Amino acid sequence: MKLARRAHRVAVAGFRFAGVRAGLKARGLDVALIAAERPVVAAGVFTQNRVVAAPVAVSRRRLRAGRAAAVLVHAGNANACTGPEGLRTVEVSTALAARLLGVPPEAVLACATGRIGVPVPRAPLLAGVRRAVAALAPDALPAAAQAICTTDAFPKTAVRRLTLGGRPVTVAVLGKGAGMIAPAMATLLVFAVTDAAIARPAARAALRAAVAGSLNAISVDGDTSTNDTVLLLASGAAANPTIRPGSRGERQLARALADALGEIARLVVLDGEGATRLVEIVVRGARGAADARRIARAIATSTLCRCAFHGGDPNWGRFVSAAGTAGVPIDADRIDVTIGGVAVARRGRPLARGALARAAARMRRREVRVELDLHLGRGTARMLTSDLSTRYVHFNAAYTT
Amino acid sequence: MKLARRAHRVAVAGFRFAGVRAGLKARGLDVALIAAERPVVAAGVFTQNRVVAAPVAVSRRRLRAGRAAAVLVHAGNANACTGPEGLRTVEVSTALAARLLGVPPEAVLACATGRIGVPVPRAPLLAGVRRAVAALAPDALPAAAQAICTTDAFPKTAVRRLTLGGRPVTVAVLGKGAGMIAPAMATLLVFAVTDAAIARPAARAALRAAVAGSLNAISVDGDTSTNDTVLLLASGAAANPTIRPGSRGERQLARALADALGEIARLVVLDGEGATRLVEIVVRGARGAADARRIARAIATSTLCRCAFHGGDPNWGRFVSAAGTAGVPIDADRIDVTIGGVAVARRGRPLARGALARAAARMRRREVRVELDLHLGRGTARMLTSDLSTRYVHFNAAYTT
Repeated sequence: MKLARRAHRVAVAGFRFAGVRAGLKARGLDVALIAAERPVVAAGVFTQNRVVAAPVAVSRRRLRAGRAAAVLVHAGNANACTGPEGLRTVEVSTALAARLLGVPPEAVLACATGRIGVPVPRAPLLAGVRRAVAALAPDALPAAAQAICTTDAFPKTAVRRLTLGGRPVTVAVLGKGAGMIAPAMATLLVFAVTDAAIARPAARAALRAAVAGSLNAISVDGDTSTNDTVLLLASGAAANPTIRPGSRGERQLARALADALGEIARLVVLDGEGATRLVEIVVRGARGAADARRIARAIATSTLCRCAFHGGDPNWGRFVSAAGTAGVPIDADRIDVTIGGVAVARRGRPLARGALARAAARMRRREVRVELDLHLGRGTARMLTSDLSTRYVHFNAAYTT
Repeated sequence: MKLARRAHRVAVAGFRFAGVRAGLKARGLDVALIAAERPVVAAGVFTQNRVVAAPVAVSRRRLRAGRAAAVLVHAGNANACTGPEGLRTVEVSTALAARLLGVPPEAVLACATGRIGVPVPRAPLLAGVRRAVAALAPDALPAAAQAICTTDAFPKTAVRRLTLGGRPVTVAVLGKGAGMIAPAMATLLVFAVTDAAIARPAARAALRAAVAGSLNAISVDGDTSTNDTVLLLASGAAANPTIRPGSRGERQLARALADALGEIARLVVLDGEGATRLVEIVVRGARGAADARRIARAIATSTLCRCAFHGGDPNWGRFVSAAGTAGVPIDADRIDVTIGGVAVARRGRPLARGALARAAARMRRREVRVELDLHLGRGTARMLTSDLSTRYVHFNAAYTT
């Protein structure tokens, strides 16, 4: 969708940012760096794909310590399916960044996004690292947000402010999406930084809780990438009383984080490759939340349903049929379907023709909600997806060539 | 794909066929009838979708007896998500056919394909049933094959002849596909008739074995319909010694049937909505056959992989990444990838650039094989799929309107 959006130019105490060009993408900024002054509290969530890119393998291991001083990101090459050379590239580039920043190499995390199965050209990357370190500035978050983009039409940032223990705290998030977006975190790179002081287990818990209802409840094409990474770094510069696990402060921070990640999630779907429509799938009355999620996901990822979304076609039978493929018990004769607030089917049967015409008009809007009530229990789920357009196909039919 | 194909004009002793127009589709034949002289041995395989169309619910129940005298099919309306009225339509229409044919109503099976969630106009259907019974003829299989089509570009038939116990036996199959084709039998209607004499359990076993490697190993869009049905009717008119369960005759018939269903499966994928390319996914070296099947399916149904197929893009990293989402253990550093016979990756790493260029040329052919060797065990699987084209999207964006 055509959305002109600017990145937030926000400062978060204790962090500097950079976005520079290294020549890994055809054009534009392609190396980003987020740096704290020293190793700070950090937490992460990574892809569930069994094939993980080299930077994911390295970052996942390094994050076990629960601390990080910097995140080095490059766009244009995913450094996935690149074997030991790929791992070596991560080690060499993060070691260089660590040396220039004066922090331990194990404290530098790495992320990458782009083409799979092509070795990363190491010399340009290392030159990019040097440039990025030199460019670090407290107000350069917009450049970093731009540098992590691949096919994204616009940079994605979100900011939330809150008060913790009487101290003002900022949460800033930068993210990228576009293709390969699926539940369980597909080609998403999302970095949240905050100046809050927080204990490591509380940071981990807050991040997991915030991701579940936001980034893990979206789908563009049902594909899960090898590189998905969400990181949270907390500098503690706000000097609030350190947030303890299970505390009210943790819940407050988790809420602010969930809110900011929710905004990023929405932007990612709006900017899905070829997307022309944002569709919110709401499933109610499932036997449990897990069942509801599986059904919402089945509809959100169905090629046929997504074509119907594209055409603004209120083909509710397709939605019910997709629900039937989710592998959980449903009773077609109990399902109510509502499109854009217009009831089109009750107890599995079509309502009057007029309803369908009204629903069709609603479905042609840029944003539409599709609701199914299964009348089997109290499980609910919500998922954001986009339509499947001919532009998506064009785009992904010739990514290499 | 543009394929001009004519249906086989074949006779199978003990059966008559009809294809007539009832006005359920915008144009063309839309009611088919297959009739034996009396209830004969019958077996069936039905959709695994939890939402099943009314004809599936009725046929599944009636088939428990292991016998059927006729199959009544209509195209243009799936009679799915139509509630008790839909079931009543099946009962009324099959009762009429039974009365006109002089067989018990419980011996008439029903199938439907087309739009979901719209009541079937009953009067035109009943008029169609009368016309179909009047039109029954031993050589009208081509008309029946035409009448079961929806968005199919051509009718799909296959014929195999074999000798059982010294007697010549014929197996004839008619089928339709086009959209919503997924593993586990999506909008497929496939009817096999044979004059072989076969015991009911042997017929069931032969059908199940034949479906597993043919119709259940294809995917067009990963969607499973509410109406999928494969039926086998055996008249016994060939007067061979009745085939017993577990006998050599059962294996012979199963082989002929598998062969004919394989031909239909291939035609269904070739004629997939918007398909321009037939892709055979072969997975080897998985820990077991089930793992191999899950991986082959993950690749065959990945939107991103199918776009790459469309563009003739040898983007093997996407295939490996899709394999990683199958939910079974793999080791990316062991995977070999071959495209159209050209090795493009070994042990998870790219081979020389020249290989990729050669693979790209192979991928632009109308038929291409993509092979993954996981080097983890001896499990293998094979699946046929088609590419995802802009035409598919166009087509499915405006099915209703």
